[in-house]
Order: sequence, then structure tokens, then C-alpha cells
Amino acid sequence: MAKTFRPKARRPRGFEDRSASVIRAERALVNAASQVYERWGFEPLETPAFEYADALGKFLPDEDRPNEGVFALQDDDEQWMALRYDLTAPLARFAAENFQDLVKPFRRYQFGEVWRNEKPGPGRFRQFVQCDADSVGAAGPAADAEMIAMACEVMRAAGLKDGEFVIRINDRRLLDGVLESLGSADETRRMRVLRAIDKLDRLGLEGVELLLGKGRKDESGDFTEGAGLDADGVRTVLGFLDAAQAKGARADIAARLADSAKGAGVAGAEALSEIDALLTALGVSEAEAVFDASVVRGLGYYTGPVFETELLVTPAYPDGSPMQFGSVASGGRYDDLVARFTGQAVPATGFSFGVSRFAAALSALGRLDAADAAPLVVVIAADKAQMAGYFAMAAELRAAGLRAEAFVGSGNMGKQLKYADRRGAAFAVIEGEAERERGEVQIKDLKLGAQLAEAISDRDEWKEQKQQFAVPRSQLVQAIMERLNRV
Amino acid sequence: MAKTFRPKARRPRGFEDRSASVIRAERALVNAASQVYERWGFEPLETPAFEYADALGKFLPDEDRPNEGVFALQDDDEQWMALRYDLTAPLARFAAENFQDLVKPFRRYQFGEVWRNEKPGPGRFRQFVQCDADSVGAAGPAADAEMIAMACEVMRAAGLKDGEFVIRINDRRLLDGVLESLGSADETRRMRVLRAIDKLDRLGLEGVELLLGKGRKDESGDFTEGAGLDADGVRTVLGFLDAAQAKGARADIAARLADSAKGAGVAGAEALSEIDALLTALGVSEAEAVFDASVVRGLGYYTGPVFETELLVTPAYPDGSPMQFGSVASGGRYDDLVARFTGQAVPATGFSFGVSRFAAALSALGRLDAADAAPLVVVIAADKAQMAGYFAMAAELRAAGLRAEAFVGSGNMGKQLKYADRRGAAFAVIEGEAERERGEVQIKDLKLGAQLAEAISDRDEWKEQKQQFAVPRSQLVQAIMERLNRV
Repeated sequence: MAKTFRPKARRPRGFEDRSASVIRAERALVNAASQVYERWGFEPLETPAFEYADALGKFLPDEDRPNEGVFALQDDDEQWMALRYDLTAPLARFAAENFQDLVKPFRRYQFGEVWRNEKPGPGRFRQFVQCDADSVGAAGPAADAEMIAMACEVMRAAGLKDGEFVIRINDRRLLDGVLESLGSADETRRMRVLRAIDKLDRLGLEGVELLLGKGRKDESGDFTEGAGLDADGVRTVLGFLDAAQAKGARADIAARLADSAKGAGVAGAEALSEIDALLTALGVSEAEAVFDASVVRGLGYYTGPVFETELLVTPAYPDGSPMQFGSVASGGRYDDLVARFTGQAVPATGFSFGVSRFAAALSALGRLDAADAAPLVVVIAADKAQMAGYFAMAAELRAAGLRAEAFVGSGNMGKQLKYADRRGAAFAVIEGEAERERGEVQIKDLKLGAQLAEAISDRDEWKEQKQQFAVPRSQLVQAIMERLNRV
Repeated sequence: MAKTFRPKARRPRGFEDRSASVIRAERALVNAASQVYERWGFEPLETPAFEYADALGKFLPDEDRPNEGVFALQDDDEQWMALRYDLTAPLARFAAENFQDLVKPFRRYQFGEVWRNEKPGPGRFRQFVQCDADSVGAAGPAADAEMIAMACEVMRAAGLKDGEFVIRINDRRLLDGVLESLGSADETRRMRVLRAIDKLDRLGLEGVELLLGKGRKDESGDFTEGAGLDADGVRTVLGFLDAAQAKGARADIAARLADSAKGAGVAGAEALSEIDALLTALGVSEAEAVFDASVVRGLGYYTGPVFETELLVTPAYPDGSPMQFGSVASGGRYDDLVARFTGQAVPATGFSFGVSRFAAALSALGRLDAADAAPLVVVIAADKAQMAGYFAMAAELRAAGLRAEAFVGSGNMGKQLKYADRRGAAFAVIEGEAERERGEVQIKDLKLGAQLAEAISDRDEWKEQKQQFAVPRSQLVQAIMERLNRV
């Protein structure tokens, strides 16, 4: 007899199955953020998972291999399609495709999966959820200030408190002005300088210095080509960075930057000054949002104000080791992205946060109380012939607002009680033949059982009494509700 | 100078961008269904978009070309991955992969995108959202009855009323018994018979008769191979179908089916009898759920009870033409799907509904009132230098629970008022230089304007008065809240 082919049950490398507790935390975060966006007049939009590869462009963040990094396939008309790697490139396509009909500024938010075709590694997933808000068709710093204030409100809505996060804001044109003054404003060099500075946190000043100049070899021996600035250039950029990180009130920093700004930097300093006034009007404090001209963000397409949000508290994994995060939310202005399609400049600004890791951080901090599911009651199927009766009990309990199910699997009462326990049920309900004849049901308080088992080890009989008790069948729901309200 | 490459902004064929009103309706439906599943003790699970192609298997519904119909690509380790075409195959993979650790029965629900690589056509999309609930590890008809009762509760939660839907239930083993008695139980023939019967609605008895026998040529000339039953066999199956559609109480039909059942059919009739009693215990009326042995469903993997939900009201498109739906929710028992991986039989049952078309139907029927977004207020940017003041107004209005934004685009006041109108705003707030000097703001009631424009054409001055009025700046929020409460 031919052997039947049996595939091995395994999920693809770099992808994860998300469990109930993770999903509930992520939903709580996405709902909180969506409510913020809705209140600010943003409307939901959902673009499809696929885009034509040429429409996605070569804007993968921190990715030096264009066209790699995405999941792409050829449609039956030979056109290359790719799964979106973020939600910004599809928005630019949508805005360009529907430009004439859009009410402008077009204010939309979107959350959804994105895919990156990267080498899988520990904690590096190839699919994750992003949540974005963007304004297309809004040129001034007002739209940027609005994004920053919304990011701040999302942090608050997620449960973060004073001093637990900070938004760092910059305008890329400040650095563009410095590079212009060095005669080093060509696009490849500009991107290398931006990426070098973006690594300040990770590599320190020394590493950045190498990347601004000839290049840097890392511990593994890999060489990253530098921006090729000469010694004077490197010194100028490092000097700018040093000054950029000066602490102080937003207005003071903006004034200082305006004093030293050159060329393109002048407009950048002016934008920061306006943003400061608008943030103040929107109630964003000096502690919540600061100016820091060393913030550049790695993405190629930003053209003006950029910002990132940093957690100032360090959440820990269950084993106590700290969760390391870069920015949990970031964004900026990208005035050229729609023009890629239309040739016509369309100002746009927005921001994005990674739902999974932000939700993981908030869960670890105990800030996303998503565990608000109603208590679960499992009706034990003590006698399979009485299933209709057990179903009726579960239905009554559900009607009272509880989560409830009758056990539909197989196994004796011990196995069923273990099931109830493992499901985290608050109560098990038991109606065997004896109880049915007496018109009663037994209620077993599973949470109390666990508490008592921890607290006391003697007085077994009393324990037994309190943990399990009989009530008339007609008082099943009432008895459970009373027990719940007593806690 | 080299011409810059400009990609054309177009979304891939067969994919759609979903707008705010569609998204809001779909979210309302998914939330309603999720609440039902949670109440019944089901927990959310999210599997990734990709599965290994061999894990997905060849279970595409109504698809005679295995391995076509999916979007597949080769990973860099040469393994073929494919985007999921439904949520059942990934669940089977998950259950098999985690079988030892799962609390059984494993009760999960999931909603998410699925992808079908089909020829795009009008109204045929290659990506859509499904919403499923399943129990893995539950063998008896109790788990099936529960699925049917949950489907019924989802219909209710979606706003459907008495007489607006019906769930048709069958057990495939009844027909298996008939085929056994004909000596025609091999799998290919069985599937052809099932698919023939599944087309009863569309092709009528005559078409089914051809498909049970030699085959059928459709209007376009395409020939579909028949099941190859001889004349006696065709007559027997048609006779079964005819008897199967007899109307009556569930218990009566189950008893009649038990009388005539042969071989595998005996267990099927018994299951229906049990399901009837359990549905009654769960409060599912005879009008909500009926037995109809002509229901078979096209999917290959069903092994026992199957059911489908039909709308008895016909929603209409905005142009008045009727929306044609088959079943809006369907499911059944599939005891062999996990065994594909493990070799060990694992009973499982579940159901699924297509979110987009069900939500579209409910929207057309006015049943999903998802338009519960708060009223929108647009603060006109009459003087760009005063943006901070306009932002402060918008912040005050948001704090009062309204949706509010200051206009951040470009354009004169007429253009901005048009924007507010097109956005569906309830009010525009205007503070020009004159108002600011007087410490006032103008409030324009945009909805009243539209109503009045429809209702009366004379008395222009009075109209002007009511539609736009001045209040002290400090009373902005209060004045708008009063106007809203008056309606």
C-alpha cells in the first residue's frame, strides 16, 4: 500500500501565531489610537496587501538592497506585485490614483499587517502590524505639529504618564543646510550622513565619526562604506550634532538653531519655531516634546520635520531582563512621495507606530489592561445524555453577561475540571444524576480554590465547603452573580 | 537630461481600497460577532498570512485546479509558501503543530484577510476578510449544534430579525449512505455528486441531473464532467434530494431521515436528531434553523454535519437592483483535516462568514448602524498667523467629546467651507480679524444649512441668521453642544 504523504505541521520561518492575551493587548492599543485619530478628524482607509512593485518604490527603511526585502511575485499578466512593507507607500499610491476626487487635506489613518522579507532571527518577525496617521495636501508646519500632538495623545491613551515618554523633534533641513555649506549635498552622500547620524545611539560618536568619513568595520568584520566627508566636514557635522543635543526650552533651542542655520536650514529652524507655538496651543508640554537636531530617522523620503517617541521607562520581560526599544512611534514630512507618481509636488506628513512591540512594552508595564474579559463559567458535561440541559445552563449564564460554555470534548469529570482550570474559568457547574434528582447544581469556585490552596493548607473540610456548594437549579445564575459581586 | 521614471499610480487588478463607511460597517459586524464568540468561551487566535504550501493542502473551495488559486512564492530556503485562502487550513496546521500543549477542545475565533488568486472580475476580489469560529477536539453533535446556535446569534447581533434569515442544516453522511448503496462511494465520484447537488440553486434539478450523470455543457460551451452515475443512480439521488427538501418540524424530518437512512446515513440521521434537541435547549427556533438534506456545501473536507445561512430579505444596491447572495455564513464538521498532519483523527467543527459581503448586505438593509461617529467640527483657518488659536479651539472641542480639526491645508475661506461640507462636518467655526477683535467666533451650522436649502427658498435673511451666529470665544464649546442637543 502506498504511504500517504503527511506534511509536517510547522509555520513558515519568521512568522508567529499570536495568542489571545497578545491579541487583546494589541486590540486595546489599536482601539485607543483609532479613537484619538477619529477625534482629530481622521478617517479610516484600508488599502490591499499587494501593490505593484514599481508603485512601492525603493523606500525600505535601513535597507541597502533595493527590491530585496519585500515578498514579491509575478501576476499572470507578468506584472510584479509585492506585499506592502509599510503603510506609507500604499497611501502615496492611493493619493496619487485618486488625487482629483480626494477632499484635501486628505486625513486618513490605517492599521494593518506589513511584511518584510528579512532573514528571520530571534524576535525579528517578517509580518507585523503598523498603525499610521497621515495628512496629504497640507504644506505648513501646522500639519506636522498636529501629528506630534496626536502621537503624544496616543501615548497618553495607551496609559503612559508624565515622564514616561518623550517625543524628540527635528527638521532635516537643518542638516541639509550644513551639508550644502560643505558642498556635500548630493543625495547618496546625504543619505549616508543621515544614516550615520541615525546610528548615534547604537554606535556612539566614535562610530558616527567613522561613518561620516571613510567608513566603519563592525565586530563581525563587515565594512560599511562611509559618507566620504573630509576631516573638516566630519568636524563640522559632529559640531552641529553636539550643539543639536543641547537641552533647553523648545523656543530657546529654535532661536539658537535659527541663529546658526544656513541655506535650507533657515526654513527648518522657522518650522521648528512655529511647531513650538502650535504644540503649546495644543497643550503639549516641554517635557512631552523636545527639540533635538540629532534626530534624523533612517527613511530616505523625509523632507522636513521628523520626530520619534522614546520610552523613558524600561519594561522588563517576564524573566526580568529589560526590553530594549528604539523609538516606539515616529514620523515626519515627505513632500516628494506622491510626486513620484504625478510629477506634481504634494505635501504630506504622518507618523507610524509598531503595534506589536509597543503593545508588548505596555503589557509588561501593566498599562494596557486588556484583561477585561468577563469571567468564564464551564458547565461540566457529567452525563452526555443531559447535554441539552447543560447547554441551557450555559445559555442562561451568557444571557447574564458572563462567558459560558458547556464542555463539548471528551473525558471524565476530573479531566473536565482540569480543562476549566486551564482555561482560566472562574467557576465550574456540575449536575450529576444525584444533583439532577434533587433539582440542584454544584458550583465550584475555581479562583477561590487556587487562592485557598496558596493561603492555607489545613482545615480541609472548611476549604471544601466554601469552594464548592450546591444551589437549586433555578438559582444557578443568581448564585454565581452573588459570588462574583462579593469579591 | 534623462527622463525620470514615473510609475503609474494604480492598485493591482482584483484588489480594492476600502473607504471609511465600508470599514466602519465591517468593524461593527466583526465586533458584534467577536462579542458572541467571546461570550461562548472562544478565544482569539491570529495565524500569519503565509503558510507552507504543503500545509495549506488542496482544499480550495469550488476549485478544480489544485495549487492554482493561491498566491505562492519560494522562500530563500527553496520552500514554497502561499498566502492563506481561508482560515481553516491554517487552524488545522496550528492545532497539529501545538496539539500536545493545547487545552482541548480548543475553541478559537479568528478574523482576517484571505487571498484567492482568481481571475479578477466585477465584484470578485482577490483579497477579502473572513471571520471564523472553530472547536478542535470535540467529537459529538453538541459541538456542531453550538456552532449553529452561534451562527444564529451572530445573525441576531448583526441586527437581523425574525423571518429575515434561516439556517439550513444537513449531515453529509446521509448522502454518503445513498452513494454506498449504489456502490458509488469512491472519493472523486463523491465530490462530483456533492458539487452537483451544491449547484441545485443555480442550475435547477435539470442541471443537477446532467452533472450526476454524464456531464453538462453550459451556455458558454464549457463542459463539466459528470459524476457518471447510471440512470438508476441518478434517479435514486434525485429522489433523495426531493424527499430531503420536505418541509416540517426538525424532529419530524430527523425521524423520517432515520427511517430511510442506510449505512453511513444512520449516524447522520442520529446526529441531526441530537442537534435538534440541543438547538431547542439553546433557544434556536424552528424558524431560525431547519433541516434540509439537500445542503451539502462545496468544500471537500466536510465529514458530517454541514450548514449554511441564507438571507430571506433581499438587500438592494443604491441603484435599486437586488444584491444576490448565496449563503452568508456556513460551516460544518471536518474530522480529517488535522489528521492530514498527524495521522491521528482529531474531530473538529466550525463555521465562517465573509465579512465584506455580509456587511454590505447589512448596510444596504440599514441594519448596521455604524455611523455613530461623533459630529465633526472644522475650525476655519481664516488667518494662517492665528493657527495656534485655531488649534486651541479644536483641542477644546475634542475635549468635549466631539471630532474636531483646524484646517491645515491651503485655500481661501470659501474653499475651506467647501472642505468642511465635503467632509460631512456638522459645524464650521470662523474667527477672522474682526471677530477676534470683538472676542467672538462665528459658528456655521452646516447641516441646518443643507436642510433649509431643501426646505425653503425664500426668507433669505432669516435663513442667514439661524444658520450662522456669533458667540463669545469663551462660549464656543457650550454653544455648539447646545445646538447639538437641541436637535
